[in-house]
Amino acid sequence: MRNNLSYLLRKPVSWLAAASPEDDIIISSRIRLARNLNNMPFPVTGEKTCLQNVCRLCLEALNRTEAIADPMEIDYLSLDSLEKQLLLERRLISREFVKDSVESAFVAEKDESVSIMINEEDHLRIQALSPGLHLPELWDKVNQIDDSLSGELDFAFDKKFGYLTASPSNLGTGMCASVMLHLPAMTLAGKMNSVIQGISKLGMSVRGFYGKSTLYTGSLYQISNQSSLGESEEQILFRLNALVRQIIRHEKEARSYFLSQKRDFILDHVGRAYGMLRYCYQISSNEALDSLSALRLGVDLGMFSSVDIEAVNHLFLLVQPAHLIYHAGKDLEKEGRNSERAQIIRETLKDLREKL
Amino acid sequence: MRNNLSYLLRKPVSWLAAASPEDDIIISSRIRLARNLNNMPFPVTGEKTCLQNVCRLCLEALNRTEAIADPMEIDYLSLDSLEKQLLLERRLISREFVKDSVESAFVAEKDESVSIMINEEDHLRIQALSPGLHLPELWDKVNQIDDSLSGELDFAFDKKFGYLTASPSNLGTGMCASVMLHLPAMTLAGKMNSVIQGISKLGMSVRGFYGKSTLYTGSLYQISNQSSLGESEEQILFRLNALVRQIIRHEKEARSYFLSQKRDFILDHVGRAYGMLRYCYQISSNEALDSLSALRLGVDLGMFSSVDIEAVNHLFLLVQPAHLIYHAGKDLEKEGRNSERAQIIRETLKDLREKL
Repeated sequence: MRNNLSYLLRKPVSWLAAASPEDDIIISSRIRLARNLNNMPFPVTGEKTCLQNVCRLCLEALNRTEAIADPMEIDYLSLDSLEKQLLLERRLISREFVKDSVESAFVAEKDESVSIMINEEDHLRIQALSPGLHLPELWDKVNQIDDSLSGELDFAFDKKFGYLTASPSNLGTGMCASVMLHLPAMTLAGKMNSVIQGISKLGMSVRGFYGKSTLYTGSLYQISNQSSLGESEEQILFRLNALVRQIIRHEKEARSYFLSQKRDFILDHVGRAYGMLRYCYQISSNEALDSLSALRLGVDLGMFSSVDIEAVNHLFLLVQPAHLIYHAGKDLEKEGRNSERAQIIRETLKDLREKL
Repeated sequence: MRNNLSYLLRKPVSWLAAASPEDDIIISSRIRLARNLNNMPFPVTGEKTCLQNVCRLCLEALNRTEAIADPMEIDYLSLDSLEKQLLLERRLISREFVKDSVESAFVAEKDESVSIMINEEDHLRIQALSPGLHLPELWDKVNQIDDSLSGELDFAFDKKFGYLTASPSNLGTGMCASVMLHLPAMTLAGKMNSVIQGISKLGMSVRGFYGKSTLYTGSLYQISNQSSLGESEEQILFRLNALVRQIIRHEKEARSYFLSQKRDFILDHVGRAYGMLRYCYQISSNEALDSLSALRLGVDLGMFSSVDIEAVNHLFLLVQPAHLIYHAGKDLEKEGRNSERAQIIRETLKDLREKL
């Protein structure tokens, strides 16, 4: 019954690919634009017919412009909550969109590199995702979609404030750029609290893997611009890029420190996580993410000879609830998910050959 | 400098061998006899010359009777504290004997099956150790030594009380018989508290691996007779044997229960311990014993295809401080011991092939 999205599980996720040399520290980058149609109420206040009208106008414009070259075949309104959860876990839609999406629509590239939500908080949320740190390329991509759509749609724009959005935090460029970093060594060294404080002072914000700003499961940190007003897109991206490069440098220093000064400590940290993941039969989501994080660090440190970092990256996705249920092909309660999660991890790591 | 005992590390320990079918639950048995020379003060009150005299008399009797067929070549008084610690870890001498042994002597079979302390709490402490549950055989062994020595020495004996000993708890037979059991399933099931209470009511006592009655590291339990008065040796041994057989039955039932009813839980418990032991780089003594205990359970449950339970048994010994220092060939502080311990475990388990 839930087979229309199951093909997603059989293909690699483009934004989890591993290619560039910084991939041991940067997981992915994302740029999202918020746009609204002129003289139309924002989704939160809009009436049903009005929002349906927004949907129609946006979808027609997307069709005419062919902004999405090879679209996924999904009728969003027909999806059940599990299917929506699957898209959320793949970062194609937002948590808010899962909860409240009556007069909404969703289109995305089949390769999951671009997705567009219609009637989320704003009429249009256009996002592009990529592996590694590729902010300029992502900006080109969303900017091109924005350009082609603005030839078809009348976007709400104010000469003084820029693009008008439902939330003041998106006013201006309407752009939110974020980079997901994997910072296990700085986390182990207890340096992340002061780093997060420093980032806030630069007008950037930090959230965890699940989008919360208090829980950094798996030593994963999403850094994004806090405000989109008063600076051009290029300026924001330039600052974010520079900040991320600086954090990468710190993380690399922390890794070198552990390898040279606390070798047994770091080998132990990675080894225990690896051993546990390889032979566990029940594991919670948070424990899995934290241990995969340690394993990923070990891969980066060259402690394993033939492991694909992409396989480990992919596990971050596969161990989440909706993915587990899809993988099992049946509904699973918490205990069943913990067993299924352990099984997927065991099987993925089975062929890994450690140099430990 | 500390090489005169290092040969001990290169040979298997007879009482850690695995042979009988109950060996998955019983580690070893031990019988110890306390004897004192007539008209001589107990060691705690004896003067130096008097205790030297006791030493001389006992050693001469041991020589003449050849009670120890193939003795270890050890001059006990010349041993340093590390060497004494090594003998303690091998259960050849007592903790008290390590601390306070000025006018003492020590003889033992080279295969470590029999050891005799002179001027411990009593003038003579004769003990025999074996793997598995072999109380009658052990009794034969110590009884034979006792018989031959009593032909040479005048033992303090009272017609009403039996053998006179320094501590009233040894009065009577002067015998303490104990069996070390590995009870991981009953421990996991939370049943050991009531079992220990039940054992106490039968006049038996329970201690842990380190001899304490509160800490049962590694799910190891030593059960022994609390008093040696009012019953014959045979009666005490019969009761202990029956009690142990009953506990074995309970442990087997608990294992069956876990395998049939909570399979993922028990596989997870064993798997995590195994994975951690195989890939850790630092591990404390207690964590090692607890994890080896889980691994030993896994071996017993058939979760590994080609592992020698003797190798796992042997690790219980090798991970202790003095053994680690001997293995490293140099003094080790706590952190160094934790690394050395992890290394020995990793190397021992390297060739293990799991069926998990």
